[in-house]
Amino acid sequence: MSVTAAALAELIGAELVGDGSLPLDGVAKIEDAGERKVTFIANRNYLKYLPETGAGAVILASIPEGEEGRRSYLVTDDPYAGFVKVLRHFHPEPAKPEPGVHPSAVVAGDAVIAESASVGPLSVVESGAAIGERTVLLAHCYVGRDANIGADCFLHTRVTVRERCEIGSRVVIQDSAVIGSDGFGYAPGEEGYAKIPQVGNVVLEDDVEIGANTTIDRATLGCTIIRRGVKLDNLIQIAHNVDVGEDTVMAAQVGVAGSSTIGRRSMFGGQVGISGHIRLSDGVMIAAQSGVHKDFGPDRILGGYPAVEIREWRKNEAAIRQLPDLIKRVRKLEGGK
Amino acid sequence: MSVTAAALAELIGAELVGDGSLPLDGVAKIEDAGERKVTFIANRNYLKYLPETGAGAVILASIPEGEEGRRSYLVTDDPYAGFVKVLRHFHPEPAKPEPGVHPSAVVAGDAVIAESASVGPLSVVESGAAIGERTVLLAHCYVGRDANIGADCFLHTRVTVRERCEIGSRVVIQDSAVIGSDGFGYAPGEEGYAKIPQVGNVVLEDDVEIGANTTIDRATLGCTIIRRGVKLDNLIQIAHNVDVGEDTVMAAQVGVAGSSTIGRRSMFGGQVGISGHIRLSDGVMIAAQSGVHKDFGPDRILGGYPAVEIREWRKNEAAIRQLPDLIKRVRKLEGGK
Amino acid sequence: MSVTAAALAELIGAELVGDGSLPLDGVAKIEDAGERKVTFIANRNYLKYLPETGAGAVILASIPEGEEGRRSYLVTDDPYAGFVKVLRHFHPEPAKPEPGVHPSAVVAGDAVIAESASVGPLSVVESGAAIGERTVLLAHCYVGRDANIGADCFLHTRVTVRERCEIGSRVVIQDSAVIGSDGFGYAPGEEGYAKIPQVGNVVLEDDVEIGANTTIDRATLGCTIIRRGVKLDNLIQIAHNVDVGEDTVMAAQVGVAGSSTIGRRSMFGGQVGISGHIRLSDGVMIAAQSGVHKDFGPDRILGGYPAVEIREWRKNEAAIRQLPDLIKRVRKLEGGK
Repeated sequence: MSVTAAALAELIGAELVGDGSLPLDGVAKIEDAGERKVTFIANRNYLKYLPETGAGAVILASIPEGEEGRRSYLVTDDPYAGFVKVLRHFHPEPAKPEPGVHPSAVVAGDAVIAESASVGPLSVVESGAAIGERTVLLAHCYVGRDANIGADCFLHTRVTVRERCEIGSRVVIQDSAVIGSDGFGYAPGEEGYAKIPQVGNVVLEDDVEIGANTTIDRATLGCTIIRRGVKLDNLIQIAHNVDVGEDTVMAAQVGVAGSSTIGRRSMFGGQVGISGHIRLSDGVMIAAQSGVHKDFGPDRILGGYPAVEIREWRKNEAAIRQLPDLIKRVRKLEGGK
Repeated sequence: MSVTAAALAELIGAELVGDGSLPLDGVAKIEDAGERKVTFIANRNYLKYLPETGAGAVILASIPEGEEGRRSYLVTDDPYAGFVKVLRHFHPEPAKPEPGVHPSAVVAGDAVIAESASVGPLSVVESGAAIGERTVLLAHCYVGRDANIGADCFLHTRVTVRERCEIGSRVVIQDSAVIGSDGFGYAPGEEGYAKIPQVGNVVLEDDVEIGANTTIDRATLGCTIIRRGVKLDNLIQIAHNVDVGEDTVMAAQVGVAGSSTIGRRSMFGGQVGISGHIRLSDGVMIAAQSGVHKDFGPDRILGGYPAVEIREWRKNEAAIRQLPDLIKRVRKLEGGK
Repeated sequence: MSVTAAALAELIGAELVGDGSLPLDGVAKIEDAGERKVTFIANRNYLKYLPETGAGAVILASIPEGEEGRRSYLVTDDPYAGFVKVLRHFHPEPAKPEPGVHPSAVVAGDAVIAESASVGPLSVVESGAAIGERTVLLAHCYVGRDANIGADCFLHTRVTVRERCEIGSRVVIQDSAVIGSDGFGYAPGEEGYAKIPQVGNVVLEDDVEIGANTTIDRATLGCTIIRRGVKLDNLIQIAHNVDVGEDTVMAAQVGVAGSSTIGRRSMFGGQVGISGHIRLSDGVMIAAQSGVHKDFGPDRILGGYPAVEIREWRKNEAAIRQLPDLIKRVRKLEGGK
């Protein structure tokens, strides 16, 4: 399995500096790497590990002074992309499960399962559901009545796709995510809350990835929609009738309340909360744990609770740190001690 | 499936204004509705969509000036309740699964399952458990030893009801919720933490609804109790020995720590946190993401971290926005520049 | 099942004060306890219940004035530890499921399952996996390819242990936890985000406990590691390549972002968030809902967002409450009204 530094440089289109005949047999973190390992530096914070690393080769954007000649380098404008290619070289995609329906799965007679698809042990596929070419469902998955899953999807264990939900192609869903649970809607009445039927569905477009134990509620009417290329981390809540724009990324434990619209290419830190009926434009970035209670235009960088422009939030935070002292100064101005 | 506007008005007890013979074939959101659809306005924020909507009929509380005669109206004091009735008319409850135990389910010989109940594929019902009349368990559910589920409940896929928990009637549990996981209790000792046995259970009273992937821990001793009519959204954490009062509603990702008591008819926004051993009276409303660290009396509206009366919190927030300027003004008063 | 107060005192090494012949048949909360029950006071907040309790006996550290002679007391330096022993006396560990593989489970031919282990109904064990002596998997568990689970573990229902993860001995995992989901890593490119292969795994060392619906992501490279004795509550997110030190305890809904290192014997309140690439030393305590964005040394007590020393945070919070008044005072100093 070993490969030369020169071959790896060619694989990723990097300039080789140093010994190209060096044999490398795997990838490692810079702190742990030994002489037959290749590692990478994409983030300047990791440059501090370079003088001490035992790695035989390092993928990076430029060689710091004093480090020349100490090991082999693969110099490239995008070390991270190079690292991913090398990683995939040493760790090829694991073999997919064999096509076919596991004998322990429970599949309705009128479900349409592509011949090249794989339905894992103890999975359930209900009546009218369809599963596309080369799609894999691992163990314990559930596909509800009339749900539709496209081609080349990968559902890890215990994924729930409820009735009438629509999943595109090349969608990855991590373990125990729930797609299509009922929206949280009740009408207050004299005898407590009456449940509002949630008759819509969830649409996941192509190339979406959904994290473990994330929940996406179906729409009251119409669709909750997660658009092409969106990546959602674990334990996220997406409420009914939310619309998440293309290529948006959300870190773990974010919550988006009902009927809000999130733009394209947005990035939300962990534990962010978005109120209901909010409209955020494209390219909005939100610091972790912030709470957004109103609409914002494109490309804003937000922080705080309630969230404001992050510069304003930082200014306010810095001012708060001066506040105990300020109170003393005002007391002095007032003639107090 | 089409029905006249006049018939819908009669169905919901509304006054018909406009063409009663108009044929309607479904419900739609006001932004999307075409001429054969009925829509509704319950929230004033949606009035802005009225001039542009293509809906044939609108359920609302009163017709704004200038909109008379432009379409049919169903005028009622409670447009939301009317909408729910119309929605149910066009989307009748889906047929329930057939009564009986699916042959792939694993059911203990001494479990007592009502004849009209339905136990879905690959579900497990342990020894001593009981399931009431007309209750439905979908696929992959788990009912632990000596657990008891009442009549007319609906458990979506993959619901866990652990040993000795008690579920009332007409309870709905969304996918992958966990009822009765161990409370988080350890006694620190010389060899690390020793687990405290969690020998209590969880009681869900009648008409409760529990969201997807929500977790409700069993009591150390006694019961964790969710009282009649409570509605919990997704990904909520209810710790051991918590008591949630009747008709209280919590949005997604709320966490309530151990032994706290929540009053009746309370409303918590998303991501709220409640410390342990807190007592909140009836009718408390809490803004999203707030953190409550002390007891509060009835009908308080709270916000912030630590949570205070919301008026006070808003006043403080407004003051913080003036703070950077205030610092400059004090410097000036001190004779600085 | 009844036992005398004297026998219980001996069991827990407490001094008996009062009637040693008193028969006791169970444990109860101090608010609920009747005359044949023993209860305990470990937290001074519960002393207020003592005058009113109907308990026959109370485990506590010292008898308050005026309460002598009113009931039997078991006086001990560590009432909580005493209570746990008494609790275990009245509620012995429930019988474990019988050893063996349930006939409905799906187990690969080359999985190695100890003879004394128990694999529950409808569980799946993939090829190359190993399960140690006396370990119990309840219903619907999943053990991925080449995963390894040690001895004396207890996996509640629906636990997922993904491919190549390593679980030590005496590990407890609550229902629906996910161990080894893919880390959240993507490389931005011209055609949207490209998924970075997550080729590492998760290691749970001995005596760890993981809460219900908690998710622990596998490492991109190397291990995400949860060290000996760590206790994680429900709905927690641990991202890829995180390292949690021995005997650390985290309350529900905490999130730790990628590559952060948490020290030993730390305590995190609920809903705390830790940014990526942070290093926290041993013994750090963090108040609920705080957000930590930088490194901290040992034994710090932190609060707020961004988190600072808790004394500083409390001082700032107190100052904010004075701020609206301060603004008025400055206006007055400026000669305004």
